[in-house]
Amino acid sequence: LAMSTTVVLTGANRGIGLGLAREILKNKSVGKLFATTRNPSKSQDLASITDPRLVIVASTVGASGVDLLINNAGVLTSVDYSKPIKREDVAHNLNVNCISTMVVTQAFRDLLKAGALKNGHSQIVNISSILGSIQLTSGSTPRMFTAYSMSKAALNMFTKNVALDWKNDNIRCTSIHPGWVKTDMGTSAATLTVEESTWNMVNTFFKLDETNNGLFFNWKGEPLPW
Amino acid sequence: LAMSTTVVLTGANRGIGLGLAREILKNKSVGKLFATTRNPSKSQDLASITDPRLVIVASTVGASGVDLLINNAGVLTSVDYSKPIKREDVAHNLNVNCISTMVVTQAFRDLLKAGALKNGHSQIVNISSILGSIQLTSGSTPRMFTAYSMSKAALNMFTKNVALDWKNDNIRCTSIHPGWVKTDMGTSAATLTVEESTWNMVNTFFKLDETNNGLFFNWKGEPLPW
Repeated sequence: LAMSTTVVLTGANRGIGLGLAREILKNKSVGKLFATTRNPSKSQDLASITDPRLVIVASTVGASGVDLLINNAGVLTSVDYSKPIKREDVAHNLNVNCISTMVVTQAFRDLLKAGALKNGHSQIVNISSILGSIQLTSGSTPRMFTAYSMSKAALNMFTKNVALDWKNDNIRCTSIHPGWVKTDMGTSAATLTVEESTWNMVNTFFKLDETNNGLFFNWKGEPLPW
Repeated sequence: LAMSTTVVLTGANRGIGLGLAREILKNKSVGKLFATTRNPSKSQDLASITDPRLVIVASTVGASGVDLLINNAGVLTSVDYSKPIKREDVAHNLNVNCISTMVVTQAFRDLLKAGALKNGHSQIVNISSILGSIQLTSGSTPRMFTAYSMSKAALNMFTKNVALDWKNDNIRCTSIHPGWVKTDMGTSAATLTVEESTWNMVNTFFKLDETNNGLFFNWKGEPLPW
């Protein structure tokens, strides 16, 4: 990615998103980080970062091009389909993790095209999960992951579609699994700290090249199967 | 599958579902086919089948076990994400193709368990699509398939989860791609007639064994990648 990179990061108020914001700002090549959050008044940790390159936004970003869009915002709602299920519990996973990611990605299309015109290419990173690998899934265990896994498999399909559909505009798209991270979603039983995950992920983001377009990697940049 | 097999088929009023109903009834081992449709009064082609083993139902089936559940009901709503999208267009694909399939599958769990207790195993077939293969997708072209493809990738994840989660109950689950079929959804440009697709699919359903559990095949029983 280019010098004076403009980055957009969704879901930046806590967890992996907050960690990504911190790690991204350690990178001298970043000129501007637009970090989005649904509720800026509840994002005190994010607001406490004093780096002048950080802009916290609730809806719109500036008119300059975007070089890196990180679709990090996501939810995990457990669904136990051994018993009658609530449609809205499944839909919550799909709405936030898939549909909102499509809406955000579409909204940034012109800015990503502008970024690509300026610097040769721009990059979308969809924060996915190894739980979205159909080949590697262990089923719903241990935390009734099925609907979440379905949403991440669908997100991976979106990644591949964007990579193919927007290739001629030099907009690339890649899925990244952050690892199992000690966050509200990952719980304290997780194996990685936010810093370990996000430091490695940011390194991976800035190394992504054309050969990684439309594929799926973990936080360290190691390939994962669909 | 066992002699006097009890089959449940969703989305049986037209297209591939209607063809599947016809082909399934050609099989002498089928004791009962419960064919579901949202609107029985609009299912004249289905109602015109006079086979006494066919029961057209709008909501409930009998109390005997089920040996084969075919989740065929599905929709294809095009979404062009190069322009602003309507969330409900994406959601329509996900609601019908994924969430409804989960609801139906869960609702038949006890009957599938009863079928498995009676005959050693029971089988769920999810009618998926090659458009849901992340490895093989060509992107949104030519008919803005992205949201549909996402729904079928999510459905494939559900197939794999059910196969793993209900394995100890001897309930198997497999995804089948029907081919590109001359239906309202497939259009007249498609390469297969309903008869060619459904004849082959039904042959494949009745050949499925334990080694096919949790995997993805085309109408002829040839393996497909996720």
